[in-house]
Amino acid sequence: QWTMLDWKPKRPDMLIDPFGLGRIVQDGLVFRQNFSIRSYEIGADRTASIETLMNHLQETALNHVKTAGLLGDGFGSTPEMTVRNLIWVVTKMQVVVDRYPTWGDIVQVDTWVSASGKNGMRRDWIIQDLKTGQILTKASSVWVMMNKVTRRLSKMPDEVRGEIESFFMNSPPIVEEDGRKLPKLDDKTADFVHSGLTPRWSDLDVNQHVNNVKYIGWILESAPLPILESHELSSLTLEYRRECGRDSVLQSLTAVSGADIGNLGSNGGVECQHMLRLEEGAEIVRGRTEWKPKYANNLGIVGHLPGESA
Amino acid sequence: QWTMLDWKPKRPDMLIDPFGLGRIVQDGLVFRQNFSIRSYEIGADRTASIETLMNHLQETALNHVKTAGLLGDGFGSTPEMTVRNLIWVVTKMQVVVDRYPTWGDIVQVDTWVSASGKNGMRRDWIIQDLKTGQILTKASSVWVMMNKVTRRLSKMPDEVRGEIESFFMNSPPIVEEDGRKLPKLDDKTADFVHSGLTPRWSDLDVNQHVNNVKYIGWILESAPLPILESHELSSLTLEYRRECGRDSVLQSLTAVSGADIGNLGSNGGVECQHMLRLEEGAEIVRGRTEWKPKYANNLGIVGHLPGESA
Repeated sequence: QWTMLDWKPKRPDMLIDPFGLGRIVQDGLVFRQNFSIRSYEIGADRTASIETLMNHLQETALNHVKTAGLLGDGFGSTPEMTVRNLIWVVTKMQVVVDRYPTWGDIVQVDTWVSASGKNGMRRDWIIQDLKTGQILTKASSVWVMMNKVTRRLSKMPDEVRGEIESFFMNSPPIVEEDGRKLPKLDDKTADFVHSGLTPRWSDLDVNQHVNNVKYIGWILESAPLPILESHELSSLTLEYRRECGRDSVLQSLTAVSGADIGNLGSNGGVECQHMLRLEEGAEIVRGRTEWKPKYANNLGIVGHLPGESA
Repeated sequence: QWTMLDWKPKRPDMLIDPFGLGRIVQDGLVFRQNFSIRSYEIGADRTASIETLMNHLQETALNHVKTAGLLGDGFGSTPEMTVRNLIWVVTKMQVVVDRYPTWGDIVQVDTWVSASGKNGMRRDWIIQDLKTGQILTKASSVWVMMNKVTRRLSKMPDEVRGEIESFFMNSPPIVEEDGRKLPKLDDKTADFVHSGLTPRWSDLDVNQHVNNVKYIGWILESAPLPILESHELSSLTLEYRRECGRDSVLQSLTAVSGADIGNLGSNGGVECQHMLRLEEGAEIVRGRTEWKPKYANNLGIVGHLPGESA
């Protein structure tokens, strides 16, 4: 449903990358990697989950930096960042999903970076169906630097800018920035609250922090089941405020607007506001999700999954 | 550390399978698929997690059935099973891990099936490092058929046997069967109990049941952190007793033997017994894990991870 540049995949390309580890294309500024969707990456709907898509975004971002020869510490920091104890942290992520791929589909992920303000970096992605060229997902994110010892945000040192600015594409964001303020939710304004969420051992990254992608799973824990069952996530905006470690206990809050939860059979979309906070109060993430009826494009079949019940 | 047949990967093979979807090798009885280990498949130790390995086992099992042209319902049942409402359920899984791969490694997974008794099927796997040919993991599992309407186990119908027996390799199990009885744990015999575990939306498979692989994450929830931090899982035996749906609330129980938790710095291994049960009492899974000190082969560096604290 999106049209843009003639970004058609070229089949002979594929043999250049037999292991699917990705490669640089388009004058050195775009990194491209293919993923076959695996059985364990799909959910109850038989389509890839939003976590799967976000994992693919993360993987291509890291492989881009690695392939560009800029991997200092092995996890996304450049050499000049590593000597200054600087790491990248994501502050905002916007994902727009037009269609979710299913098991066995092969998707092609393209990613590139641009400057964002004086001290930040924007990273964009396009996910396409390799066979048809159809654009499935577009995503845009903003990153800044943090000192990993003091945990404070940092300006971009000139030496780091020197390392990375030749990689900047400086195109407009692939997803238009959603400038609407994300509201702070509390027990009064939230419709649903799920408390007592704790990281599993497998949620932790190499820094013993919770990986960014895991937050979306917790956010969906407070989304009402009727929405998860009858609708699919079509857009997601996350603002990351604070990191979360392995001993954190979280609450997930959701407020629903634009629909009557008791009457989701209609063709309308739903919008939700979200917040993750520590049980002692500090905000971790604010978010907004938009949902469209499942099978909305399939001959009007709207409603529950046909699958067996538990 | 294992030696066996000359199972050396042949590089030219790889170009036959540019998308990593796998193919049949060795006279049609072995299915082979390569996986590159992705950044989001590794855990706090920078190595692939046990869940990742088990996901790769699941994926190759399904792709094997699919490639053999025997995929009836799209999820592992053959056509003759599908018309009879039969599905495969796993009753036992044994995994022995010699070394965990890390981000960017490419592993080659081989899998094949054999008869198991009169009504069952055994499936074996070998995971190798594609570059070196080193065997990283061996696994063996037993499957039986269940009627998905009545949820009762079923004999193997002759028509199904006719579909699949030409695929049976009938070799001895790649992991020698651990015949030791797995004890039933209770509040008295368990050293650690973690209650209130519930499936996340993303833990559910297409049948709205919890995917087999997710259980290992819950089992590790009651394993004591000092073991997770200082040791790595070297072997795993699971007996699946009962399925678990999206509204289940579980308890994870662990009993530790063979080590003093307060004094794990020594070079010894640890053995644990595990049980997952519904809070109302029904058993879901019994298990046994064996653990060896991390870095045991690395110049004697034994102890905690060097990583930063949360």
